[in-house]
Amino acid sequence: MKTICTSIIGFGAIGQGVAEVLLSKKEYLESLDLDVRVIAVVDSRGATIDPAGVDLAACLTRKRETGTVALEKISGLEVIKTLDHELVIETTPTNIETGGAGLLNMMAAFETGKDVVTSNKGPLTLKYRELQKAAKASGSKFRFEATVGGSMPVINLVNEVLAGNEVRSIKGILNGTCNYILSRMLEEKASYTDILAESMELGIAETDPSYDVEGIDTACKLVILANALFGLEATYKDVEVTGITKITPDALEMARENGYVIKLIGEVSRERLLVAPRLVPINHPLAVGGTLNVASVETELAGEITVTGKGAGPIETASAVLSDLISIYREC
Amino acid sequence: MKTICTSIIGFGAIGQGVAEVLLSKKEYLESLDLDVRVIAVVDSRGATIDPAGVDLAACLTRKRETGTVALEKISGLEVIKTLDHELVIETTPTNIETGGAGLLNMMAAFETGKDVVTSNKGPLTLKYRELQKAAKASGSKFRFEATVGGSMPVINLVNEVLAGNEVRSIKGILNGTCNYILSRMLEEKASYTDILAESMELGIAETDPSYDVEGIDTACKLVILANALFGLEATYKDVEVTGITKITPDALEMARENGYVIKLIGEVSRERLLVAPRLVPINHPLAVGGTLNVASVETELAGEITVTGKGAGPIETASAVLSDLISIYREC
Repeated sequence: MKTICTSIIGFGAIGQGVAEVLLSKKEYLESLDLDVRVIAVVDSRGATIDPAGVDLAACLTRKRETGTVALEKISGLEVIKTLDHELVIETTPTNIETGGAGLLNMMAAFETGKDVVTSNKGPLTLKYRELQKAAKASGSKFRFEATVGGSMPVINLVNEVLAGNEVRSIKGILNGTCNYILSRMLEEKASYTDILAESMELGIAETDPSYDVEGIDTACKLVILANALFGLEATYKDVEVTGITKITPDALEMARENGYVIKLIGEVSRERLLVAPRLVPINHPLAVGGTLNVASVETELAGEITVTGKGAGPIETASAVLSDLISIYREC
Repeated sequence: MKTICTSIIGFGAIGQGVAEVLLSKKEYLESLDLDVRVIAVVDSRGATIDPAGVDLAACLTRKRETGTVALEKISGLEVIKTLDHELVIETTPTNIETGGAGLLNMMAAFETGKDVVTSNKGPLTLKYRELQKAAKASGSKFRFEATVGGSMPVINLVNEVLAGNEVRSIKGILNGTCNYILSRMLEEKASYTDILAESMELGIAETDPSYDVEGIDTACKLVILANALFGLEATYKDVEVTGITKITPDALEMARENGYVIKLIGEVSRERLLVAPRLVPINHPLAVGGTLNVASVETELAGEITVTGKGAGPIETASAVLSDLISIYREC
């Protein structure tokens, strides 16, 4: 049995999802000869620490009941720098302006020789090359499937399953909120404003929805795909971005009459990074509804391979973190 | 550089596709430190053999010009038994009654300690357990992504990318000919008989189409998924099978008016193996048209993950063979 000591830095919805998944998958991980021991759980107010393994169930209860997991006043950065462990699961909130705490946490993890699995887009959107360089310098593993499309496994699909295939382009619906709004506008023949209001009530759109509806979130994910799968050195400013705020029910209906749907499509290739509403034939694999995410990978040999999955949700996103963890430590 | 000596047994469309892909990917394979050396190419009339590596381009030309690659009268089975090599790429034609030459070839490969990568469904439909047992006994690797859905990578997606996720069921369109016929019947409001005739003219349906349209091919693929991904011990007779020959344009149109399409769906879970025409909501990821193949994997943690790709084509299928080869020999 190989023991993997890990910290969970960030204990919001995703971090809690990771804790739940590690609890429910304990036996399965042991069947792979992996004993994953969480030695610290950290949120913005402090940490629970136990080098022998913290009680995750107790952490989840304490977080729910008191709003924090903190038993000690210590930050994620200090935990990473001072405690002996191998893996940092970084699930702090995304900040695409500065990278936020996540950027400092990841750099500190690499500087101290630790592996990182993350769901946090911000640092990768801003500093992908620097992070990869730091990881390489210390021989650390760096995995981030959960940053793009929740449980939709586009990064690992390309890197593992489509090995040998040159990828020419990826086109996808990478934001579930936009997909939901456009799908509902068509179903209800309702205006953007009305459906946006409905989405906010349901918690599908944020109170400030601009990050989603202006295409910013999609553009961030494109930047990660461009760097990770095309070897580009792209940042947010390389993406041409148009959102969905100007789409009308009439446009959606006219498209439908001609056998198309309108979707907010992110496209990445060596030639361009583009986010824009585009027509998709109704029977094309990209034409999925609801809050689903989807990515079509155009390959040299295998043609177009499309993968669809739930773009959000704590357990779905945590499942991508789990897959990354397993792929790092499982014996080949 | 690691040298992998391999034979290609079966040199029809798929075997030739493999040869083309190995030629075009020589440099890429070398970048992974893999020197894939084909020491024998065999078709039904004999073989070209060279322990130093046969000239694949010459083999392709000779096959096109003379109808055979044979320079020596020796069978695939003899090549496998007598020549020193590590990997057998088995691409002989599928025979689901007896397993055909493929079954003997694969068993001989395992008995002599060789790895097998195959596109040949027959042996796996009939003797999956026996083959796995033989492979295990000799420590051989056995990979068969290309047997289900051409370049649609459902097996490796589940085994590699969705690691840690329990799979509850898989539903899919696993036969491109049926998908084409149903898609065209709806588009043209034409009868099954008319579109079947069109499909034969285009070479999408075989002269004897029963293997496809009666659901037999789909059922064989389900058996492979049941054994490989659910650990069942299923054979063809465990599948309840209905084909598409009784579907009418009226039924398709009525479904469409209610927001559905009719597709020939194969479904596998621990409870049942079923092939039947079923209603699929038009914006569901399974509702893809043309000759595409698609599989929706219902998982415990990640929800429903769907993957779509070209179900046939020599290069597409060869790309699945290549991915399998790389995943066996690439350094982790």
